[in-house]
This record gives sequence, C-alpha cells and structure tokens, in this order.
Amino acid sequence: MTLVYEKDGAAIYRRSFSIIRAEADLARFSPEEEKVAVRVIHASGMVEVAADLVFSPGAAAAARAALRAGAPIFCDAQMVAHGVTRARLPADNDVICTLSDPAVPLLADKLGTTRTAAAMELWRDRLGGAVVAIGNAPTALFRLLEMLDEGAEKPAAVIGMPVGFVGAAESKEALIADGRVPAMIVRGRKGGSAMTAAAVNALASDRE
Amino acid sequence: MTLVYEKDGAAIYRRSFSIIRAEADLARFSPEEEKVAVRVIHASGMVEVAADLVFSPGAAAAARAALRAGAPIFCDAQMVAHGVTRARLPADNDVICTLSDPAVPLLADKLGTTRTAAAMELWRDRLGGAVVAIGNAPTALFRLLEMLDEGAEKPAAVIGMPVGFVGAAESKEALIADGRVPAMIVRGRKGGSAMTAAAVNALASDRE
Repeated sequence: MTLVYEKDGAAIYRRSFSIIRAEADLARFSPEEEKVAVRVIHASGMVEVAADLVFSPGAAAAARAALRAGAPIFCDAQMVAHGVTRARLPADNDVICTLSDPAVPLLADKLGTTRTAAAMELWRDRLGGAVVAIGNAPTALFRLLEMLDEGAEKPAAVIGMPVGFVGAAESKEALIADGRVPAMIVRGRKGGSAMTAAAVNALASDRE
Repeated sequence: MTLVYEKDGAAIYRRSFSIIRAEADLARFSPEEEKVAVRVIHASGMVEVAADLVFSPGAAAAARAALRAGAPIFCDAQMVAHGVTRARLPADNDVICTLSDPAVPLLADKLGTTRTAAAMELWRDRLGGAVVAIGNAPTALFRLLEMLDEGAEKPAAVIGMPVGFVGAAESKEALIADGRVPAMIVRGRKGGSAMTAAAVNALASDRE
C-alpha cells in the first residue's frame, strides 16, 4: 500500500490556515488578534475555540511591541517554553521557565502553594515589561494577581490560558476582570500549553 | 482583595479527576483504558473527548507492560517529551525526541518529507518493543506505517494523537485501520502534545 499525504511542512501550514480562515468566525478580531486566534485554533484543532477567546483592549499589540523590544517570556510550564518557536522571536528573547529550579520545592512548602506558583517568585526581578505565558496552572494566574497586589512590577501582557477543571475558568475570569495588565484568555476549561505557545508564536512575528 | 483558591496540587488533581469521572461517559473502557481517558480529558479540559478515543484491543495493556519492562518512549515533538512526568516512569525509561538532531534537516531534504518524519529515521534501531508517542505531526504517523512496510521492527504500542486540519484525522484512521501495531488515537482534528503526554503518564503508573 502506498500512502499519499502532504509532506511539505510549509504547504501543510498554508492549507491549515486557509481551512481555519474559511471555517472560523474571526470577524470580531483586530488583525493582531486574528493571527493569535488562527494559531490557537491551529494548535487545538478546534475552530469553535474562537468564540472563547477574549482580549483586553490593546493586549495583542502590547505583547507584540514588548517582544519586539526584547522582553523576556516567562512560562509556567516546560511544555509552554518548548512550544515557543525560537526562530520566530524578534529579538532573540529569553524564554524562561523556573519550575525545575532547585529552590522551588522548598519555596512551595514555605508559601503553602503549588510548585508552579512558587516558581514565579524567581520571575519577580524581571517581571516589569515582560510577557507572561501561563498555559498549565490556574494557581500561577491567581499568584500573578497576588504579586501585583504586593507591588510587583507589571508585565507588558499576560497570555492566560491554563486548562482544567479546578480553578482554570475562575483564574482566567479573574485575570480579565482585574484589568491591571493587558491580557488574553480562553474562557472556560479549555486551554493548555499548546494554545499558549501558539499565541506567543503568533505575537512574535508577522510571518504566517 | 484576597483571592481564595485551591493551592494544594494533590487536592487539585483529586478534585479534577473526581469531576471528570462524574461528568464523562467512561463506561465502555477497560480499567487501563479508563485511566488514559481520564488523563487525556484532564489535559484537554474536555469531557466530550472521551467519545473520540479509540483503543485497539489490548493496546493500553501492551503499552503499560512495555513501559514496565523498560521500553524507551519515542516522541515526535519536544513538547510531548517535556510533558512526560519522569517521576511516574516505572523503569527510568528513556524519553527520546530526535527532532533537534543536527542530521535532521538534511535528512528531511533527502527524503522529501517534514523534519518530524525524517527525525524518525533515528529511532529505527530501537523501535522494536518501544512506545511511540505522536502528538504533533500527522506525517510522523504516516511515516511510521511506511517504516513498518519497509521492515522496521514493531513498537509495542503507538499513542497516535496528532492535532490539526491537514492529515491529522486521516493519519489516525490509517493507524487504527492498519492494525499491525497496538494503537490508541483521538479521532478527528483534536489531539496534541498535552493529550499525548497525558496518555503516556496514565500508562506509566498505577498511581493517580
């Protein structure tokens, strides 16, 4: 049996994006938001996720500008960090996940929270103007709001797309309602590291 | 404002799995399959994905036995490899992604295929009895079937869950229809590295 299938990576991308634009309802998005929506849909296989995307005003533009200016990208999970396509980054931006830092388990005990939330303490010095990409842990989004309460400097933009059944929907609604930081979310339980990294990749470059 | 949210990672897991078992229709699965279904749902935030899961007979049991016997886990994407929880692996199994190997770009040109499919050439020597976890590229699943045609040794089981709009659904149906290797898939466009790694994590340990 000979299998016949598309083997050209660039052609696969082009055809995928063309199917997404034909099927998804993207009319309400700005051009910058639309590119995020297309890549998030691409990463999830679900055109219907477009309806769950919420951008605070100017969030996509703020994230793009920050990345062009060299902002670091702080990720809550190694999967998010490894989903960021380095060749798309406009300023060889640092992509940082501190979850495996040896200080984290003790810090989590001390703070009485998850390791993911505790790992964010190690972001504090460079948080001002950074791009934050949360794709796994709702506790990370909640903790970010607490850090802002404590006086941490504001990131340029937050991609808040944790997935799951306990706290995910609530943490994303809290981020958007909070309003202190430009943010983009996927409403509800859906989300995850692939959608989050896809949003970063969309914001990183004008190239499709 | 004080945010009130669950900060105990173990409690978040327990409550998540309890919600999933209350909401999802898991009756048709064997106990081994059910654990895979629960973790795939957990990783995606979608109880409805249970309906799209297909296991070939004995595939979940074959994957579990192979992992316990020390089989390596070959992953098509770094995100899949980084989603595998090393502490759950029963035999300190190797988790291998060859996509970044310096030989791959030239190999892809020579074979006229994607880098992901080309990277699988570097699995060939250890493919017999391995667990294969494909979460990103449909071309990798198609290429695996071609490698079997060419006489490559059979893996113990294949987790075939690439996501997307071009070839993903077709590659998964081809894998299940082929029947030479025990396999588990998510039908249709849905899938991805998080679901794939979640399936590996479910198969790796009896612990929830």
